[in-house]
Amino acid sequence: MKNIQHLTNSDFLEMEQRNRTRLINSLSGFKSINLCGTISKDGVTNLSLISSVVHIGANPALMGFIMRPVTVRRDTYNNILESGHFTFNHLNAEIYKKAHQTSARYPIAVSEFEATELTEIFSETIKAPYVAESHIRIGLNFVQKIPIPLNDTILMIGKVAEIFFPKTALGADGYLDIAAAESITSSGLDAYHSTQKLGRLSYAKTDKKVSEI
Amino acid sequence: MKNIQHLTNSDFLEMEQRNRTRLINSLSGFKSINLCGTISKDGVTNLSLISSVVHIGANPALMGFIMRPVTVRRDTYNNILESGHFTFNHLNAEIYKKAHQTSARYPIAVSEFEATELTEIFSETIKAPYVAESHIRIGLNFVQKIPIPLNDTILMIGKVAEIFFPKTALGADGYLDIAAAESITSSGLDAYHSTQKLGRLSYAKTDKKVSEI
Repeated sequence: MKNIQHLTNSDFLEMEQRNRTRLINSLSGFKSINLCGTISKDGVTNLSLISSVVHIGANPALMGFIMRPVTVRRDTYNNILESGHFTFNHLNAEIYKKAHQTSARYPIAVSEFEATELTEIFSETIKAPYVAESHIRIGLNFVQKIPIPLNDTILMIGKVAEIFFPKTALGADGYLDIAAAESITSSGLDAYHSTQKLGRLSYAKTDKKVSEI
Repeated sequence: MKNIQHLTNSDFLEMEQRNRTRLINSLSGFKSINLCGTISKDGVTNLSLISSVVHIGANPALMGFIMRPVTVRRDTYNNILESGHFTFNHLNAEIYKKAHQTSARYPIAVSEFEATELTEIFSETIKAPYVAESHIRIGLNFVQKIPIPLNDTILMIGKVAEIFFPKTALGADGYLDIAAAESITSSGLDAYHSTQKLGRLSYAKTDKKVSEI
């Protein structure tokens, strides 16, 4: 690659704030993008768009995400703490515009499901709504919040209680083909991308080169 | 989607361990995949493949990743604590096989750069190696580690000190087009994917539908 640009921390500080936010949000690479479903104690369902979902561990099955500072009303945060449950719902190309629309600041009494015409469904296990149009749906029990004092964000952690996915997407070795299930990815604050598989690679060993599996 | 499969936590526990690990690692969606560059106090450079990089905040510019339990030797962990520096280097289709190869357990005296024939380069700011073949390179100062007692993992947080990227990838509004820079994404433990942009969407407001920008 030619024409490499080099920016330092002091360059960031000189940038217009929203431009800096866009740039820094682009650095972490392609993101896991999910609709997080919750329900309030008054029974109002909520959806929020979360691009910071991260694998924490497989056994127990733990997933986390970064909650922004709760200096303003955060329905997702309040609902998770009150109900103890939340769902992650993978985005696909059919619903990504509706999913993005959920990030508008709707009043507390308005469900993002109604506002964006996504369909809520419930399971018997999890007291939080799933998005019917999502092909991979994950129900979680909230287990812990870990403050990040550096910028007042919070690492929220849930334990996977149940999952729903297209039967054909699960391989014999446990690999869930999320591309075959039409899940998409995001970058920055507002870009969405479909994917094409380059390949799966063998478990790496020091004495031989990895190969496609 | 037809033929939806439903699995619960008790199903996970009945799975063969590596299959369960593959499945649960697939749930978080497409991942940010980076080579993390560090250097030991003895001057041995190290690369490790990290699929849990997450945006923590834009101002200050903070990025994090989940470090697995340090019950075995973790060169990356030790090097970050000792040097205070690390780099993230986006993967692209040209280097993903070499990048995957770095996850083999090389002896402490062997640099993954040499073992996999990736090229190390240094900046004047960061005491950690960059991967020359990577098109988006980020240098970070280590700022904090936050234990996750649930499974003995650790959230490692760094502050972005400098970045290198193709000049043409940066838009006037601050959006860094990581797809144009040929960055790729990963899923599960071993799958790699290129991407195709679906679109960027306007800032969501309650009184109008989002549109492509």
